[in-house]
Amino acid sequence: MITKPKGFAAGATTCGLKPSGAADLAVIASVHEGPCAAAGVFTKNRFPGAPVVVSRRHVRAGRARAIVCNSGISNVGTGEKGLLDAAGMCATVAEKLGGGATPRQVLPASTGIIGVPLPIDKIIAGIGEVVPRLARGDETDEAAARAILTTDTRSKAATHRVKLSTGTATLGAIAKGAGMIAPNMATMLAFVTTDAAIDARRLKPMLRAAAAATFNRISIDGDTSTSDMVLVLANGASGASVDAADDELAFAAALHDLCADLGEQLVRDGEGVTRLMRVTVTGAATERDADRVGRSVVDSPLVKCALHGGDANWGRLVMAVGKSGATLDPLRLSITVGGVVLLRDGEPVPRKAPEQRKLETAMQRDDVPYLIDLGQGEATATWIGCDLSREYVAINADYTT
Amino acid sequence: MITKPKGFAAGATTCGLKPSGAADLAVIASVHEGPCAAAGVFTKNRFPGAPVVVSRRHVRAGRARAIVCNSGISNVGTGEKGLLDAAGMCATVAEKLGGGATPRQVLPASTGIIGVPLPIDKIIAGIGEVVPRLARGDETDEAAARAILTTDTRSKAATHRVKLSTGTATLGAIAKGAGMIAPNMATMLAFVTTDAAIDARRLKPMLRAAAAATFNRISIDGDTSTSDMVLVLANGASGASVDAADDELAFAAALHDLCADLGEQLVRDGEGVTRLMRVTVTGAATERDADRVGRSVVDSPLVKCALHGGDANWGRLVMAVGKSGATLDPLRLSITVGGVVLLRDGEPVPRKAPEQRKLETAMQRDDVPYLIDLGQGEATATWIGCDLSREYVAINADYTT
Repeated sequence: MITKPKGFAAGATTCGLKPSGAADLAVIASVHEGPCAAAGVFTKNRFPGAPVVVSRRHVRAGRARAIVCNSGISNVGTGEKGLLDAAGMCATVAEKLGGGATPRQVLPASTGIIGVPLPIDKIIAGIGEVVPRLARGDETDEAAARAILTTDTRSKAATHRVKLSTGTATLGAIAKGAGMIAPNMATMLAFVTTDAAIDARRLKPMLRAAAAATFNRISIDGDTSTSDMVLVLANGASGASVDAADDELAFAAALHDLCADLGEQLVRDGEGVTRLMRVTVTGAATERDADRVGRSVVDSPLVKCALHGGDANWGRLVMAVGKSGATLDPLRLSITVGGVVLLRDGEPVPRKAPEQRKLETAMQRDDVPYLIDLGQGEATATWIGCDLSREYVAINADYTT
Repeated sequence: MITKPKGFAAGATTCGLKPSGAADLAVIASVHEGPCAAAGVFTKNRFPGAPVVVSRRHVRAGRARAIVCNSGISNVGTGEKGLLDAAGMCATVAEKLGGGATPRQVLPASTGIIGVPLPIDKIIAGIGEVVPRLARGDETDEAAARAILTTDTRSKAATHRVKLSTGTATLGAIAKGAGMIAPNMATMLAFVTTDAAIDARRLKPMLRAAAAATFNRISIDGDTSTSDMVLVLANGASGASVDAADDELAFAAALHDLCADLGEQLVRDGEGVTRLMRVTVTGAATERDADRVGRSVVDSPLVKCALHGGDANWGRLVMAVGKSGATLDPLRLSITVGGVVLLRDGEPVPRKAPEQRKLETAMQRDDVPYLIDLGQGEATATWIGCDLSREYVAINADYTT
């Protein structure tokens, strides 16, 4: 919950960007007096949406007070107008927030269909409606979580608490995902608030590390959106600050856990997903190798289809491991699925009836563990992926401009 | 047709490896007196099947007389026994061919389900039945083309003729594909015969170049099999030899065209494919960049689903181009689909009714041209991909060990 940390407000409204008439605009702001640190990680896609360009620029100062996000229509491929639209959203939020807020202290985001002109007037009007409500305190946390969704079937939120040497701080977050989810930071939208006091220069590397181990290790379809970002605002309203080395570790761990929690929610609600695969790669020569193997497995359409069919299919797993590019020796490769060893040192392990039953039961669960040991070294990585269903195809063949 | 070149014979039989009872063993051999040059390119998957290991070793000598391929059950992940099985197939073919043939002159291949023990006795018996028929000349070309198939719905074959300075030579080929087709040479099985006389040292770089521009630029699902290879046998039976520089160019062009022909047949018969996408990337800074963009587009599940739904969706195309890693400037990117310009210099082009109709008609055809111009340089690449359908998922979720 993004307003659980002290001194944050969130609100939402309907501007009319979605055919369904669902809410499509959310604003999150620090209403606490004093500076608010900010950090962000952004899509590596080289055709980024205008809000990515603007937020990346704004967050560089390490200070921000608000996040504004529209859903329904994405501000991508819109050239100069798109940049002006994003800047206009920031200017309007700053003006309505008052108290000396500047447009540079606002971070814009956008998600939805690409290729439809953004009706910026409607969005500006929506901002004019939402922001004054924030100051009055009648914000609705859950409404903001819903207003950033697109093809998601449910809202995603998380709250974590962390004990620091000077008191307890809270972290809250909302996120949206569903499709086009794949690593290359950032992989969707996630907005994090915290009432801890932390310097932006410390916050940024922590966010990078947390995102690298969570959002960058989930995959729904291997595609990377043009609009994705993770933003953090830290307003210090709890009075607890991240100063000592122990505090840094504790805060970084809390941020990691919060992101991991959201990342798993994102995959679970992926388009057409019926089953999660949790791929743990061990024994890699390097972390990069562990990462490549994990990614190759969770992105393989054949492995994903096999999971959908409840089939452990080690043949497709060795195919995916083998094509990853990681250093490996087939005679050292071992694969365990659902707690049952399928391949040991490169050779298939015959299964007796009890193991076969155990495997079949595991493959019918909605969360299937895959353990891939390369036998090369000490590096590990854990990836979360999902199956590929007829419904994924239906959603993405029929979801049209 | 693999027996169109002079001095080649092919035969097939049923060993009983497929539940359907369809033919599952093919042998192709040069029955021409004298040496037969050979070259091969193989999967880059680091968990290669045993026949890949053995064929790669055998072809290194630049000489071979026969290819033996079983389908139905793949010889992958079978450890020491797999290597012995592949070697046994070679030894049996050599023995039955007689005339001083050695096991090293035989190139083995295998395709099918992974994870089921290979019933090598049945295959050995099948070889004993097929090879004697080759010498008697009652071979069946089409039967060999069918015997190497798995989930393919039809056999693939091609014949090309090439005029050399010393006469006309013929190239023939058969191939199998269907699923797990993706670049990283080789991407499926293709066997080429030619009655041209050509040195193996010349043949190999030509094959590499042809494969790089054809088989390595098609993609059905982005997966790379553990068993894929392209093999060429050149027996010189036509009396026409590749000697002069002009001959080299002509022969290389013929080999390229033959491979391109087969590559397109493979995609068209891909699992669940209803529509081809022909992606031409122009204006790239380097050929590597052109290649990356092409691959990123044809492998994107979202672009593939959009094509399946008959939706040109330039938003997903810019996403796929942007995530490719190629150098690009969004303001120079232009995209044309089905002859209609959708994006020019990074901005969407409004469509009037006639263009809209033209686009809709193009998107309903079974072969849709995509033109992506990066505006960065002179390099180009053409990729052939396909849509992602519910049927692909059905085939691959239900095709089980």
